Amino acid sequence: MASPPHLLTLADLSVKQLKSSLTHAAYLKRVSLPILQPRPHGSYTLFPPKTLSDKTIALLFSKRSTRTRLSAESAAHLLGGHPMFLSSADIQLGVNESLQDSARVIGGLVDGVFARVGDHSEIVTLAQHSPVPVLNALSSLWHPTQILADLLTLLEHLPSPDPLPTAPISSISPGHSIPADAVPGDLPPKLDFDVLKGLTISWLGDSTNVLHDMLVTYPRLGAKVRVAVPKEYPCPGEVWDRVVQLGCDKGIDWSDDPLRAVEGADIVVTDTWVSMGQESEKAARLRAFAGYQVTEALCKQGGAAEDWKFLHCLPRKPDEVDDGVFYGKRSLVWEEAENRKWTIMALFEYVPPFFLLVGCASWSWS
Amino acid sequence: MASPPHLLTLADLSVKQLKSSLTHAAYLKRVSLPILQPRPHGSYTLFPPKTLSDKTIALLFSKRSTRTRLSAESAAHLLGGHPMFLSSADIQLGVNESLQDSARVIGGLVDGVFARVGDHSEIVTLAQHSPVPVLNALSSLWHPTQILADLLTLLEHLPSPDPLPTAPISSISPGHSIPADAVPGDLPPKLDFDVLKGLTISWLGDSTNVLHDMLVTYPRLGAKVRVAVPKEYPCPGEVWDRVVQLGCDKGIDWSDDPLRAVEGADIVVTDTWVSMGQESEKAARLRAFAGYQVTEALCKQGGAAEDWKFLHCLPRKPDEVDDGVFYGKRSLVWEEAENRKWTIMALFEYVPPFFLLVGCASWSWS
Amino acid sequence: MASPPHLLTLADLSVKQLKSSLTHAAYLKRVSLPILQPRPHGSYTLFPPKTLSDKTIALLFSKRSTRTRLSAESAAHLLGGHPMFLSSADIQLGVNESLQDSARVIGGLVDGVFARVGDHSEIVTLAQHSPVPVLNALSSLWHPTQILADLLTLLEHLPSPDPLPTAPISSISPGHSIPADAVPGDLPPKLDFDVLKGLTISWLGDSTNVLHDMLVTYPRLGAKVRVAVPKEYPCPGEVWDRVVQLGCDKGIDWSDDPLRAVEGADIVVTDTWVSMGQESEKAARLRAFAGYQVTEALCKQGGAAEDWKFLHCLPRKPDEVDDGVFYGKRSLVWEEAENRKWTIMALFEYVPPFFLLVGCASWSWS
Repeated sequence: MASPPHLLTLADLSVKQLKSSLTHAAYLKRVSLPILQPRPHGSYTLFPPKTLSDKTIALLFSKRSTRTRLSAESAAHLLGGHPMFLSSADIQLGVNESLQDSARVIGGLVDGVFARVGDHSEIVTLAQHSPVPVLNALSSLWHPTQILADLLTLLEHLPSPDPLPTAPISSISPGHSIPADAVPGDLPPKLDFDVLKGLTISWLGDSTNVLHDMLVTYPRLGAKVRVAVPKEYPCPGEVWDRVVQLGCDKGIDWSDDPLRAVEGADIVVTDTWVSMGQESEKAARLRAFAGYQVTEALCKQGGAAEDWKFLHCLPRKPDEVDDGVFYGKRSLVWEEAENRKWTIMALFEYVPPFFLLVGCASWSWS
Repeated sequence: MASPPHLLTLADLSVKQLKSSLTHAAYLKRVSLPILQPRPHGSYTLFPPKTLSDKTIALLFSKRSTRTRLSAESAAHLLGGHPMFLSSADIQLGVNESLQDSARVIGGLVDGVFARVGDHSEIVTLAQHSPVPVLNALSSLWHPTQILADLLTLLEHLPSPDPLPTAPISSISPGHSIPADAVPGDLPPKLDFDVLKGLTISWLGDSTNVLHDMLVTYPRLGAKVRVAVPKEYPCPGEVWDRVVQLGCDKGIDWSDDPLRAVEGADIVVTDTWVSMGQESEKAARLRAFAGYQVTEALCKQGGAAEDWKFLHCLPRKPDEVDDGVFYGKRSLVWEEAENRKWTIMALFEYVPPFFLLVGCASWSWS
Repeated sequence: MASPPHLLTLADLSVKQLKSSLTHAAYLKRVSLPILQPRPHGSYTLFPPKTLSDKTIALLFSKRSTRTRLSAESAAHLLGGHPMFLSSADIQLGVNESLQDSARVIGGLVDGVFARVGDHSEIVTLAQHSPVPVLNALSSLWHPTQILADLLTLLEHLPSPDPLPTAPISSISPGHSIPADAVPGDLPPKLDFDVLKGLTISWLGDSTNVLHDMLVTYPRLGAKVRVAVPKEYPCPGEVWDRVVQLGCDKGIDWSDDPLRAVEGADIVVTDTWVSMGQESEKAARLRAFAGYQVTEALCKQGGAAEDWKFLHCLPRKPDEVDDGVFYGKRSLVWEEAENRKWTIMALFEYVPPFFLLVGCASWSWS
């Protein structure tokens, strides 16, 4: 049996695949949103691509992850599938049987695995032994679905002549199905990926899984990444190897200076300084990250672009960003959170590493 | 964005809305029960109003609540929706991020929130910030869905010329769909709300959320409420304010005397004396409630009506009601528990504060 | 109200019912597997017998059981039903209210109960008071769904002239529904139950629930059972009574000698020596089971058949079977685990004790 396709980081996707995934996510959002609105009685529309009908996706979550779970469950249901949530109380990977055996058994009973693990090595082992596709919901090293949501948010909010043309989609209104003869290729709105070219994305904070998938993705789409991370918390070698391998290092400026990082910033991004499991290091970490809080003053002093925008994967603590920025007009965090749903839905349905690789010529993303 | 409608207590509903919700619940029960029976192969009927198809309802439960959860999950499935159960192990409101942020994010990923919180202030905050409707599944102060189920049970069991006429519904039998041209307005059985007028409902026990929604509801439907609660456990001021505001206080007799409370009682209702979280007060509470146990002897001595009936929201401890009453012919507790499902289902589908407010002229309840 | 049918052990099923259940499981597997494969866009097939559509099955699990849960959830979804998982964190049987009351209430809100309990007496009480069918997912004494999966695995893997003729099923391909006029009776592949006659099934290990359902089942299908269990852990009297009552004792050789047990073995089966809840006895148990590990050497020395096969319900510890056997060519454990899904699905849909007993002449299994 050939190994099925898996997705552990965005480094696994080519630029074409990245763009195709985002285009499909935008399409799913466009056709789903009207369907989810209240409608007059009698106009119940079945959303057409019930790609997961009859199928069960195991959501294997060894740690809590609210946004990821809510997005995955509601997306799987929209596609007709059953999201089976398994917490660490339900299944403890590696405790009662070998991870290898669990991967074979779980993969034999469900149709896909969306796994939020602790150490990244766990999902690597799952993928090695699972007979069905494994998607990384979150691991110690990578967080691919977060960066897809960030990208969709930027593509929607950055100024562009026509980010989401309404032409073919406009025929889809509440009470009407997508025309039976429509093929997906007709419908996706055109995303203007050129808006990403020359953009400066700044990261202030820890070298987390969110940053890691930014590093292997933005430079390949033409954006520059400027990073400020304290020297005590360097980028893991395993991650940096992928960065170099994809030629992304040339698009990255790495320092421990927040002011340098926000220079020319179009987008400023941060994340918690104290991740789950690091609670005992809290005091030391707060010291190390002194001066890293994202504020208007810091961005002005460092020379960020006039109209810089703010992203955060949530949940947010005031340590890393003040209320003015977080709740202010620069903040895209709520749209970013909602886009978790549409981008995960696109992966569930469409991305080649996942469910529809085989025999789906008409959905080809190349 | 205008705030969506929420339902935190039955005080939020007008009398018309109350009656409409109950009528719709009776209708849903009538059309669903035959569909849930075993049927010959080939006669699978899709229950028509799949109002929640494609939609996900978050069941946000910070405390256990078996009946509420089972009712909500099975009702949401009957309506085609995905009930996403989130326990306190999955999401701890207010712990990892502000409640305000959680409300915005959760509401951006699901289509409705059915929340069982601890302190009532939590669901108030949820409702203030949620972009989708919030229904109160249970809070420290209110328990609206319980009283709707109690009302449906009484309307079914109190003597009336024709509580549920079978005329239009009789055409719906296993293996047949509801006629395509039927509109909901045709079908609901007529409930005889007049049976509630002049009724005496007696409460013996603590001033719990169940009592509170009785106080703001029964007097508006023409029934009198007689209450016995120990002086140590008075009605919270916030609740009594709503009672007065709705003019319900005139229909209420409040004392600490169980015998006085059951005088003329048509219905006797009680609940646990030791709610979740009050375990440390157990000894003091058992002392305070001495003499409050519902028994044949007490009701006879106090002068209850000959054919008084008994209600209890469950789970039941023998402290508050003896086996004779609880398992005897006066007890409506099992029907009451089953009616949780149909009344919650009606709220999910129909009540204006919830999903179908906008654009649903034909389902208007006024 | 007549009591609904329940299934607590395979001793509850006649030989005809056993064979019918297995035949139906093989049928469900045959029609479902192609439907779960990736397919070209536009060919979404609804699997026809959505027997559980609109229905909710409570999965009442007081202990973890990965395979059982994953099988039941994915099977219920394939049949259109909602599997509602209730762990011991959600519901603690007998703690907050009497088990009797819980059984009545739960059964009034859902359409079936699949219960994984601790002590077998719990599921007996559930069945006594539940208004809907109760299926035993696992108890201290019995494990009926495991042995059904074992049997399907053997029927698929033991040499037979025509175990699964493809004739009528072959017309079902991806993108095509089962013909509307097909009746289930036409379609099930013929399983060759004669391959079980004269077979020797050997058990080495503890007297667990898995062994108990083997004891009441294999002899009735013509197979002999040879058992080695340490004298310290005898078969519970309640179980042996059912064995004798069904006349199965004549087909069983019981000793404490592993070499004797594997004599002539066609199939060797074992299970963990330390079940959940027995962790404190671990050291004593490991001593008692010294010499019971299933290995090539032991089976050769004892005189097992040349081509003996190995079964294990999982999860597996190396104590009871070495890597050579477990991961080797004799091992059928992965197919066995996957067959949990199809046999549980058959029970959910079809077995007379469960959902379709009433009014389903065309699905009659006799």
